[in-house]
Amino acid sequence: MLTLFHAPWSRSSRLVWLVEELGADCRIEYCDIRRMDGTGAADPRNPHPDGKVPALLHDDALITESAAVALYLTGLHPEAGLSFPPDSPQRGSLLTWMFWASGELEPSLWNKMSGAVDADAYARARYDAAMTRLLEALWEGPWLMGDRFTVADVLIGSTVGWARDHLPESPLLDAYVERLAARPAHARALARDGAPPQYAEAS
Amino acid sequence: MLTLFHAPWSRSSRLVWLVEELGADCRIEYCDIRRMDGTGAADPRNPHPDGKVPALLHDDALITESAAVALYLTGLHPEAGLSFPPDSPQRGSLLTWMFWASGELEPSLWNKMSGAVDADAYARARYDAAMTRLLEALWEGPWLMGDRFTVADVLIGSTVGWARDHLPESPLLDAYVERLAARPAHARALARDGAPPQYAEAS
Repeated sequence: MLTLFHAPWSRSSRLVWLVEELGADCRIEYCDIRRMDGTGAADPRNPHPDGKVPALLHDDALITESAAVALYLTGLHPEAGLSFPPDSPQRGSLLTWMFWASGELEPSLWNKMSGAVDADAYARARYDAAMTRLLEALWEGPWLMGDRFTVADVLIGSTVGWARDHLPESPLLDAYVERLAARPAHARALARDGAPPQYAEAS
Repeated sequence: MLTLFHAPWSRSSRLVWLVEELGADCRIEYCDIRRMDGTGAADPRNPHPDGKVPALLHDDALITESAAVALYLTGLHPEAGLSFPPDSPQRGSLLTWMFWASGELEPSLWNKMSGAVDADAYARARYDAAMTRLLEALWEGPWLMGDRFTVADVLIGSTVGWARDHLPESPLLDAYVERLAARPAHARALARDGAPPQYAEAS
């Protein structure tokens, strides 16, 4: 059995979207987390060792880190076509995007939000390189890996949508965010993201 | 054909080690990079868009980001036993370690080296959580995932060895570094890491 520990409007929201894209049979367990505004608290039911989300339980096995959960869920559903076989060079490109998201894109965005990009030449160069990589891929488009919508679009697309105000002005980025929002699974995920009434009443 | 773009004594050294662990048929292309001490320069022959290493070419496909290259190479060699099948929960644990390395361990180490861990409570908490996770796994041991040596030991083990002075005093960590160094593939990789004489003379 698959159980996703999820906090509404958080980093695990992208996994709710992925569950919908994959048609995965996955129970969503709504839980509390510490929020950046100081509200919330680690939920004792959440198995994540740092009290964060997402956390995925597959039977007794625990999977954490957004991109790891995303790749793993996608690997369970090859029929959904959101990834590539292990020996395909495109699999290598997909893995590059997934690790680039956590290793380059996210640190660049934090540096942009903290002001480091405006104060430090190294942070500026790193941010610029990340934006160039993103925009060049979308110039080819319509998805990061061309014609095929992949799990990289879920991971990176959700980050782009969330951090849109900290990314360059660009019709390419605007159109990408619109294409992502137009996906039926995206709309279903939005509807499923918030806590169901029985949870909201109990907490 | 597989070609690994590698700079001696750099982050790509771990991939040379992995090539030896896997017995992969992979050509090593020695190249220059910008070093943290200000020496070196981006090598025009290196296809990495940011001039960094590692970069792997599989025919015409480019794979970058250390962990992506590591997972991809490992996926081409399932017979080496350094990973798990896509539908195995242990595959999920392995992916967690791989993304944890770039998302938590490496930022924690940079924060330790920069002094942020001593100055900032959030950085301290993150570093402590990372060290706890690492030490708990090695307490079970002998490898991060128990009895099976995996690609996570190559990725994280190489980081532990490189940053040993910035990690806690611990016989568990010392013994882990010794176990890694005792692997025949590790010794072969060390011998192959530096540029061969004909390259050193030409450059």
